Amino acid sequence: MPELRKDPIVGRWVIISTERGKRPTDFARTTKTKEPKLCPFCPSNEASTPPEIYAVRDNDSAPNTPGWSLRVIPNKFPALKIEGDLNREGEGIFDKMNGIGAHEVIIETPDHMKDLVDLELGQIEKVIWAYRERILDLKKDPRFKYILIFKNQGEAAGASLEHAHSQLIATPILPKRVIEELDGSKRYYEYKERCIYCDIIKQELKSKIRVVAYNDMYVAIEPFASRFPFETWILPRYHEANFEYIKGDAISRLADLLKTILKKLSIALNNPPYNMVIHSLPLDSQSQKEYHWHIEIIPKLTKVAGFEWGTGFYINPTIPEDAAKYLIEVET
Amino acid sequence: MPELRKDPIVGRWVIISTERGKRPTDFARTTKTKEPKLCPFCPSNEASTPPEIYAVRDNDSAPNTPGWSLRVIPNKFPALKIEGDLNREGEGIFDKMNGIGAHEVIIETPDHMKDLVDLELGQIEKVIWAYRERILDLKKDPRFKYILIFKNQGEAAGASLEHAHSQLIATPILPKRVIEELDGSKRYYEYKERCIYCDIIKQELKSKIRVVAYNDMYVAIEPFASRFPFETWILPRYHEANFEYIKGDAISRLADLLKTILKKLSIALNNPPYNMVIHSLPLDSQSQKEYHWHIEIIPKLTKVAGFEWGTGFYINPTIPEDAAKYLIEVET
Repeated sequence: MPELRKDPIVGRWVIISTERGKRPTDFARTTKTKEPKLCPFCPSNEASTPPEIYAVRDNDSAPNTPGWSLRVIPNKFPALKIEGDLNREGEGIFDKMNGIGAHEVIIETPDHMKDLVDLELGQIEKVIWAYRERILDLKKDPRFKYILIFKNQGEAAGASLEHAHSQLIATPILPKRVIEELDGSKRYYEYKERCIYCDIIKQELKSKIRVVAYNDMYVAIEPFASRFPFETWILPRYHEANFEYIKGDAISRLADLLKTILKKLSIALNNPPYNMVIHSLPLDSQSQKEYHWHIEIIPKLTKVAGFEWGTGFYINPTIPEDAAKYLIEVET
Repeated sequence: MPELRKDPIVGRWVIISTERGKRPTDFARTTKTKEPKLCPFCPSNEASTPPEIYAVRDNDSAPNTPGWSLRVIPNKFPALKIEGDLNREGEGIFDKMNGIGAHEVIIETPDHMKDLVDLELGQIEKVIWAYRERILDLKKDPRFKYILIFKNQGEAAGASLEHAHSQLIATPILPKRVIEELDGSKRYYEYKERCIYCDIIKQELKSKIRVVAYNDMYVAIEPFASRFPFETWILPRYHEANFEYIKGDAISRLADLLKTILKKLSIALNNPPYNMVIHSLPLDSQSQKEYHWHIEIIPKLTKVAGFEWGTGFYINPTIPEDAAKYLIEVET
């Protein structure tokens, strides 16, 4: 019997359809071997990108030359532009705004052949540090309301360059789903005076049926109302609304769990394309008590989400508990 | 300069990013020639589907034999099951429900080689009639709150069989996006005492910059805050919340405009895969005054919507006015 499950945060119902059940092996992909070629993100090609904004470098290396282990640059084809004032305007019944914002690329490693999952723990820590540093810097700009950190891994997940990188978009608006999460968290807090994410974490760690892995500071779960097969969330076990307040010690614990999860997904699903997004408190929000930052990882496995876009209605062919069980058993 | 646009109904902001601008020709697809093979939707193979629920047949033909021009059957692998009572249940903090519902397939033509766009007007009318008839029938079942009619055209849009068909899913819950549309429409109505869709139609027909085609009863537009390149909506020019109240005369006008739009998209984008969804008033809603049914057609052109799923945040590389201009010029 299929089951309908309600996302406790945003209130969305999802069909978990066992009828069309797919086992993890149904999704297996052929591994794509990377071919290094003329890549703008590779060392020595620094001149083919806009000048760097942030980098982790050898002491004696100059900006925009080799000698870096991580590099942040403006996106050459930005979805939003950094220069200008924010102007809101009407067009009859419609509302618009000029596209002010920041769009940056975090080059995660100089090594063209490595993906995020392949990096040493210390290098993954540098990536997380870079996220933090860039958010703290862009936060000072009063034009921005939200800073989105995300990663498209693999061509099928939207990556246009194969050299490992993440992206940052600072926007003068709030993404719809963040508003929904915030509204849902507030509603719950009003009723219970507790953070809904904290309550979910507590319940999941007790039942263990959807927990994939955890350490002393972070936990990775398959969410109860997963929209997609093997959708995985990583959450801090301590209450914190703002990702960018993460400390050095926590970063190394997060890097550790993130690597474990990416490795499990990579082994279980044969190096799948995926999208990773950090959800954090909007810059101008006062809901520190109600919200709880987290990372969402969505492997791109099903051929298409199809009409989901038109309806907000998801049919997930894989039971989250089955996905969790499968991932738990994968040795990393 | 990129532009941010707000969907006036659900309040979602979309980035219209001219920087990464794609012209219609960038999306052109290779035409796939259909290969008829052992297809369960073809005449003479009626036994390989569940028994039909509805059909348009020659007078002397028996159910589940050839002689039909349109056929509705239960989905062999239903996402929801028709039998059983609705049970809601908690699981600690979580809510679930058993997966009661209907999942049907509307086989649009006996001809394996034809797509919806290729059908004669009379046959498209039969398809729309079948939608209407099935909704009116399933509406009697008090377990259902919404009936979703949609079509996945092409493998990349999620179609698993190439024989032309649409699908119907009756659900005991409301899809998230329908709730959002309803909430947005109500908010507007409270403020203006007018239907927001009627206002949009009026403005669009006046400015004509996003109208692709129209007749005396229907209009097709590229929405102001389009999420996807060539996203197209068809709306009745008269106010009506419920699709299923459509009358014979209106059906033939709708078939006419639908065929025009599908043909324009097919010629402009070289037979693209697409998703089509009918948005209609939920079965138990009293918002007849505020809501306005419509059809959303989303060609699947961009490689992936990627992180949109995780954020509700869309970047559309094609300006809707440009898409409209292009489609207007396509001769059908």
